[in-house]
Amino acid sequence: MNELDLIELILHETSAYVKAKYAGRTRLQVHEKRGANDLLTEVDVAVQDLIVNRIKNSFPTDAVIAEEEGLDQHPASPPSRCWVIDPIDGTQNFLRGLFPAFGISIAFVREGAISAAGIAMPITQDVYLAERNCGATRNTHPLQVSRHGDLGRARVEVDFSNPEDREFTLESLGRVIHAAGELRCKGAATVALCAIAAAEAEAYVHVGLHPWDYAAGQLIVEEAGGTASRLDGSPLALFDGKEGILISNGAVHNALLAQLSMPHDPVRAPE
Amino acid sequence: MNELDLIELILHETSAYVKAKYAGRTRLQVHEKRGANDLLTEVDVAVQDLIVNRIKNSFPTDAVIAEEEGLDQHPASPPSRCWVIDPIDGTQNFLRGLFPAFGISIAFVREGAISAAGIAMPITQDVYLAERNCGATRNTHPLQVSRHGDLGRARVEVDFSNPEDREFTLESLGRVIHAAGELRCKGAATVALCAIAAAEAEAYVHVGLHPWDYAAGQLIVEEAGGTASRLDGSPLALFDGKEGILISNGAVHNALLAQLSMPHDPVRAPE
Repeated sequence: MNELDLIELILHETSAYVKAKYAGRTRLQVHEKRGANDLLTEVDVAVQDLIVNRIKNSFPTDAVIAEEEGLDQHPASPPSRCWVIDPIDGTQNFLRGLFPAFGISIAFVREGAISAAGIAMPITQDVYLAERNCGATRNTHPLQVSRHGDLGRARVEVDFSNPEDREFTLESLGRVIHAAGELRCKGAATVALCAIAAAEAEAYVHVGLHPWDYAAGQLIVEEAGGTASRLDGSPLALFDGKEGILISNGAVHNALLAQLSMPHDPVRAPE
Repeated sequence: MNELDLIELILHETSAYVKAKYAGRTRLQVHEKRGANDLLTEVDVAVQDLIVNRIKNSFPTDAVIAEEEGLDQHPASPPSRCWVIDPIDGTQNFLRGLFPAFGISIAFVREGAISAAGIAMPITQDVYLAERNCGATRNTHPLQVSRHGDLGRARVEVDFSNPEDREFTLESLGRVIHAAGELRCKGAATVALCAIAAAEAEAYVHVGLHPWDYAAGQLIVEEAGGTASRLDGSPLALFDGKEGILISNGAVHNALLAQLSMPHDPVRAPE
């Protein structure tokens, strides 16, 4: 089994599990991580454990970087083979969502480049997959980004971050918020990025993400014909220590970069 | 058949129709109304016609106010019996949505007061109903708003409006955006209001809505225990000519009003 096959297998297994847990979400144990709006449930942990176990069974010596439980380190020089995982991107939505926008995200990274990736949306049971230079699919159907290039008519997904980062977020995104056609904020990077790949939105901007938030989505968008960069226009490299991302259909990319008055891209403080 | 029974019957019929049309949405004719981001499809028109016909069959002399096709007048003194309809609230999402957040909204208004209301979410096939003084339900299960009273931990849904109204929207909502715990923007009032009624969010703020956008949702939230007002704190009356609305679980209402620095509530220009 190659890496993409393994990703697909794991996503189907975990997606069904998460959908079942969603039905009983009011009975879940919830913990706060770094603040009142940064939540962790037993489902995040169980899904991550399941994913890590499946990977270790097939590729025992590969490294794993993931959001929860002590696997959340991202070194400047990653191992030559590593996996980047977010067991549930959008935990808040998982716990409370009317339109439950959350995804399971798995990327395989070889020599620092994302080479295979998948995202599952448990509630709709959609599975998005991509392999470098081989295109992206949703439920096996090929995906192609939109060609809309007019920012004033584009649908742009933003994120307002936690209250502690709100001021900086608004300063950074102010001109984007003024210039975009439609604005949406669903609170899950995976959902925003899959929407761009499927031509349902044009761009996603976030000032502070970890590699596991966007690794899989980045490859899916790029393989559907889109573009990814840092907020200063530099290439989006998973382990460069920067936090801001702009991922788009390509056609609105430069217009958005021009609205992001970022003299320096945000850089993560050493952890 | 009373008014609520009729609403429920119509919602089930139209919800199934809209779900089927959603599957073929890329083949729909789309027209611009007041601008590039204000869209109308043949489905909006067909659903409105169907709803109006069903109402006229049962209550031939009742007045109807609705979003499309010349029924979009809202008089200062409405007739003693009238219906307020939005055939598809969230047309943009209907056309493009990954998590398709749009609703069908029907309210029955007696002597100016909303007395029965329903909203259907076609994709999830959920039906929300409310009757004044009799509570609100989702798929027959009673609804109760959340009790969260801390704005810094509350989930608040906002809307950034069309680009033409963006500047005014940001000025009006700036302090709310800074103060809220989680911010979401799904672009459909019906979806936001049903989320509040179901304790999945705490509040919704919008600076410029028509009565058909919120009439049904307002009653559903109020009957689930929530509160509705204009942005200046005055009672939310459908035909008072004002446009801004704040609808919440009640517990965060005053904290939000304090952040809305609105000396005068926006008033609609005569149409």
